[in-house]
Amino acid sequence: MQDKPKFQRENQEFPENWPINTYIRESLLHRSIRRFEPRPVEEEVISMLQEVASRASTSTGMQQASWIRITDRDLAREIAQVCKQEYVASMPELWIFIVDLYRNYHIGESHGFAMPEITSMNRFFSGYRDAIVMAQAVLSAVESMHMGGVFLGSVGNEPLEIVKLLNLPKLTFPVLGLGFGYVGQDPQLKPRIPVALKSFENQYHIPEDYLETFRAYDQEMTEYYDLRDENKREDSFTLQIMKKYGQLNIPRAKVLEDVEAQGFQLFVEE
Amino acid sequence: MQDKPKFQRENQEFPENWPINTYIRESLLHRSIRRFEPRPVEEEVISMLQEVASRASTSTGMQQASWIRITDRDLAREIAQVCKQEYVASMPELWIFIVDLYRNYHIGESHGFAMPEITSMNRFFSGYRDAIVMAQAVLSAVESMHMGGVFLGSVGNEPLEIVKLLNLPKLTFPVLGLGFGYVGQDPQLKPRIPVALKSFENQYHIPEDYLETFRAYDQEMTEYYDLRDENKREDSFTLQIMKKYGQLNIPRAKVLEDVEAQGFQLFVEE
Repeated sequence: MQDKPKFQRENQEFPENWPINTYIRESLLHRSIRRFEPRPVEEEVISMLQEVASRASTSTGMQQASWIRITDRDLAREIAQVCKQEYVASMPELWIFIVDLYRNYHIGESHGFAMPEITSMNRFFSGYRDAIVMAQAVLSAVESMHMGGVFLGSVGNEPLEIVKLLNLPKLTFPVLGLGFGYVGQDPQLKPRIPVALKSFENQYHIPEDYLETFRAYDQEMTEYYDLRDENKREDSFTLQIMKKYGQLNIPRAKVLEDVEAQGFQLFVEE
Repeated sequence: MQDKPKFQRENQEFPENWPINTYIRESLLHRSIRRFEPRPVEEEVISMLQEVASRASTSTGMQQASWIRITDRDLAREIAQVCKQEYVASMPELWIFIVDLYRNYHIGESHGFAMPEITSMNRFFSGYRDAIVMAQAVLSAVESMHMGGVFLGSVGNEPLEIVKLLNLPKLTFPVLGLGFGYVGQDPQLKPRIPVALKSFENQYHIPEDYLETFRAYDQEMTEYYDLRDENKREDSFTLQIMKKYGQLNIPRAKVLEDVEAQGFQLFVEE
């Protein structure tokens, strides 16, 4: 390991005057975990994490998100196929967070309320935010216990296939998967673009020496190993930009058609 | 206080076998904080929280989000006007998280890359997720230090006004504000819909006794005081459903027009 110690967790140093606690240390050393110990997560931990999700901030108090816990292994395999990631099939815990306007619709409808706002894109985005806030609150709790996890944006490869697999009603939409459990690997920390290029004060502005500052990061990325036990280096970030944005992902670019198919009104009819 | 102890933090009890640590306790007792001690947040805390934001999970590693820290009081007042929430003007810290595809566009463009994917809704939603994951990671860190904060979805009242105020370039979009600081109030815990109605196993389904289970929560909401020192009770959740979805918020329902104005392609041209 002597030849690649730079991105190992144990070699990270932080300023002495930072008030780092256990949770913050885990956040500063966050990396996605995709391989886990084979033991299951205890049911009391699951119950606790569900309360954490439930208690998370929610837009205007309307709780427009839900989650589906996948315990059926065949179903997990089908989801893994949508994700095109085999490891998704064998996560100790696999939760899919969804926009959920259906619950409130169902309640209001039982009272005969007219609810023109409930299908609006305003509410869709509120629910989308709720779902992600929940998902990150759960991941934060998981990491605070020295467990690990990974987000699966790849449920978005075919949202309507996920809708079918999970029997999602109208006015719901899959946002993000979260796999988690007891850590079974020790990946390096993936380098990040420096804070100076992501954080602005009062006004967005591109500094003169932007590309200069960026170059050191760009180089750093090529020194990082995606998994420390695999002999594979990452492309520079510049090369990733070329590859990842070079071709339009047509099915995923059509996401709004899928949102509309789930009953949301993309535009206001006037 | 004897007459309304039910929703006070100190009166919450959790199962003894839950492995609760400091961070998880704060999450289980989360409530939004809108009033703060007048003292500022120390600069070393700010630096630390910026690293937490930077290190948070990011979709396909592309880091398609940024944040603007508002330190200019006049600017904060203008943002508070967009939010229609006066308290926003006097938050010790006010950060606006944004979708940011502009940074990667700028880098790729300096190399002359063609990037048809960068304006896609796929990337817009990836950046949107990144921004919220960051925001919740920061709020989790804030709460782990026994400080408090509140999300401001209200920056979405007029996204293009926020764009103007913060000088946001094309391919960026405001997602969420976060105000935080040292806690200056002790609000009650706002009741949540029971986990049984938000969490599903393998398949989404509405249980037969759904409305029955919901009724206890509905009643609970009316017993909760929005702020313990104000003599004001909340509507039942059912009444909130009627009020909040009863009328279409037209400017906010038009959010996709604003997204398009920032340079994103809503649909695929074939």
